[in-house]
Amino acid sequence: MRMIDIIEKKRDGQALTTDEIQFVVAGYTSGDIPDYQVSALLMAIYFQGMTEQERADLTLSMVESGDQIDLSAIEGIKVDKHSTGGVGDTTTLILGPLVAAIDVPVAKMSGRGLGHTGGTIDKLEAVPGFHVELTSDEFTKLVNEIKVAVMGQSGNLTPADKKLYALRDVTATVNSIPLIASSIMSKKIAAGADAIVLDVKTGAGAFMKDEKQARELAEAMVRIGNNVGRKTMAVISDMSQPLGFAIGNALEVKEAIDTLKGEGPEDLTELCLELGSYMVYLSEKASSLEEARQKLEHAIDNGKALERFKEFLAGQGGDESVVDNPSKLPQAEHRIELPAENAGTVSEIVADNVGTAAMWLGAGRATKDSQIDLAVGLMLDKKVGDKVEKGESLVTIYANDLSQVEKVKETLLESIKITTQKVTVPTLIVGTVTGE
Amino acid sequence: MRMIDIIEKKRDGQALTTDEIQFVVAGYTSGDIPDYQVSALLMAIYFQGMTEQERADLTLSMVESGDQIDLSAIEGIKVDKHSTGGVGDTTTLILGPLVAAIDVPVAKMSGRGLGHTGGTIDKLEAVPGFHVELTSDEFTKLVNEIKVAVMGQSGNLTPADKKLYALRDVTATVNSIPLIASSIMSKKIAAGADAIVLDVKTGAGAFMKDEKQARELAEAMVRIGNNVGRKTMAVISDMSQPLGFAIGNALEVKEAIDTLKGEGPEDLTELCLELGSYMVYLSEKASSLEEARQKLEHAIDNGKALERFKEFLAGQGGDESVVDNPSKLPQAEHRIELPAENAGTVSEIVADNVGTAAMWLGAGRATKDSQIDLAVGLMLDKKVGDKVEKGESLVTIYANDLSQVEKVKETLLESIKITTQKVTVPTLIVGTVTGE
Repeated sequence: MRMIDIIEKKRDGQALTTDEIQFVVAGYTSGDIPDYQVSALLMAIYFQGMTEQERADLTLSMVESGDQIDLSAIEGIKVDKHSTGGVGDTTTLILGPLVAAIDVPVAKMSGRGLGHTGGTIDKLEAVPGFHVELTSDEFTKLVNEIKVAVMGQSGNLTPADKKLYALRDVTATVNSIPLIASSIMSKKIAAGADAIVLDVKTGAGAFMKDEKQARELAEAMVRIGNNVGRKTMAVISDMSQPLGFAIGNALEVKEAIDTLKGEGPEDLTELCLELGSYMVYLSEKASSLEEARQKLEHAIDNGKALERFKEFLAGQGGDESVVDNPSKLPQAEHRIELPAENAGTVSEIVADNVGTAAMWLGAGRATKDSQIDLAVGLMLDKKVGDKVEKGESLVTIYANDLSQVEKVKETLLESIKITTQKVTVPTLIVGTVTGE
Repeated sequence: MRMIDIIEKKRDGQALTTDEIQFVVAGYTSGDIPDYQVSALLMAIYFQGMTEQERADLTLSMVESGDQIDLSAIEGIKVDKHSTGGVGDTTTLILGPLVAAIDVPVAKMSGRGLGHTGGTIDKLEAVPGFHVELTSDEFTKLVNEIKVAVMGQSGNLTPADKKLYALRDVTATVNSIPLIASSIMSKKIAAGADAIVLDVKTGAGAFMKDEKQARELAEAMVRIGNNVGRKTMAVISDMSQPLGFAIGNALEVKEAIDTLKGEGPEDLTELCLELGSYMVYLSEKASSLEEARQKLEHAIDNGKALERFKEFLAGQGGDESVVDNPSKLPQAEHRIELPAENAGTVSEIVADNVGTAAMWLGAGRATKDSQIDLAVGLMLDKKVGDKVEKGESLVTIYANDLSQVEKVKETLLESIKITTQKVTVPTLIVGTVTGE
């Protein structure tokens, strides 16, 4: 088998065989196939696409390129949730204890990463004492007992994906549906999930700005999952404005607590119930999505979800009293309201820009060496569709470093648009893909 | 300027600016831009093509990447001829002295290279004593006096093209008209030509099998030439069967002598007159193609062309008596006729296979370390359209190494097809592109 023939075949629009895809992925991972041949192939894939079979083959080849997490010691059907990423997305913090409360095992591997805020681990570290340094046995024991635990990603998972992604990043081949879908799915499968619920964001604050592309990506991932034997479902959700009110690490923990109490923002609560229903259903703890949703609502109403959150924090060394007393979370020195310059209705909150403003305050990492300030961030006081009076606060800035505040204010004023015309509130759940 | 933006721009079908193309070519030549980004760009070009302006910019950027030959000390308009390569193509050996006989200066840089037979220099070295080790001054003096000289390519011409070609060769991006056209034209321009005549071959024995593609390439090159200030014309000629009768080094020198005497194969003679007319016209030694052709025919008829060939050989140390006594050229030990197995009409001579058979005998190099045997090769006794009796010779094999002869015979019998049906002889001159 020769790489040049494989490039030529794809260039000419033919489908590659399973063997050919394995040859490429294994050869690239080992260094036998050079970057310059792989980047030519990636560009050919960008133009010619991949069949369903090729996508499944690529995903599995990347899974097989490294370690795979064995979750077999954990009882039940392990469902993983993945979001394509947005601004103020607190769903993971909420969904873990929420579905665990009705015995869905959540064995979460998470990371820190770059972005507007920290990753799930950073956010949880806002709880005094909480840590993710668990042995594999401790992790398994926690999930079997409490049904939810989070640990940092260990092992060498999907090295092929890491190498391919780094190459795509410098060769203008990131934005290809088959490549994005295979990359995400390979990571979820290597992390040991039996079933996968995907939250594909669309709108100005999402990677997929366009609904059509978001749906294409959702369908691609659901098909890959089901083709490789992992039940997979996807929700396509709006990310034209930030989700919920909080953008920041401790702020999102507080928002998660509120939501688990049934007092969270409407959109965040709704999305958690939607994604959670799929998780419960796929984990076979309910025989229909309706039943799943009822169970979740019940777990919020009767306090079990909140109770489970406390157990989860305590299980990993965290101070569970923050749940009843959130002022124990890191607090920013300054709270600065941003008054509206005009009266009207909020017509748009450009999610990307708001996220970037939170990052400037120190809520997220611009580079992997940046230090996160867990206390800082933004709390939206208004969302799209809300009426606002002149001088009323649009957003409260939680800051320690005042030097960034002027820039943040300016950006927020530009990003939060107010109109006197009628405003249509964006639909939160844009669509679902069940693969059935 | 960032390479990733340039790749993305081309990927999305936009034209690159002159500055962007210079940035890519200079950066790749210096090593500042890595292979993997360039191969992604090449694949994007494969799919999205290049505008006329981009092709001209790419050509000039490659010219500027290395040395450029200065032929200003040579009087007159220097016209270079380039063939895209075929089997049994003896035109360069003939055209040099032929157009020189009417004072068109031919300052030829040539190489050895791989192929069915050697390059022009290998062929000429079949003449005892002939050498191409000339100083630049000797070369200039010879061209000014005799109007024709050949020297080996010196200097570091178009290093960008060499590097890009090597990368294209391993990334399935060779077969792109803008890239092929720019590559060829950059080499001709760097070699100092004022005007260029292109012989674009089409048919089974050519790189461009397909007439439409050959025309596209011819048009692309003519446009590049004229856009960068070099008068350029192209002839599209048939290479479905080998040109002339001879395939082999000494055999082609003999065939060149015959043709300069007016006794050469009809197709080879016709193509030389066609290409030669363009050369004479572009060199402004005739005011029309008709006048140019008459002058060339006259130079053959009155012996001036043959005389000029002798002077050319003598000028570079060669034994000019070979012209009157071709038996002084290297002679193969064995001459083996290949009798036809059936009677009928020759319907096809698969040029590629015949060329490969000649290479097996030792006429050409399979790898750059192969030794050429100047004496060996093939002489076609029949061409497409010729009647043949059973047992009559189709081709005469000139061999020294008998071990290859059985394989050669088998290949030739498979490649020379005989039918009892009516045969259409392929048209030699398929088209011309004048750029006017």
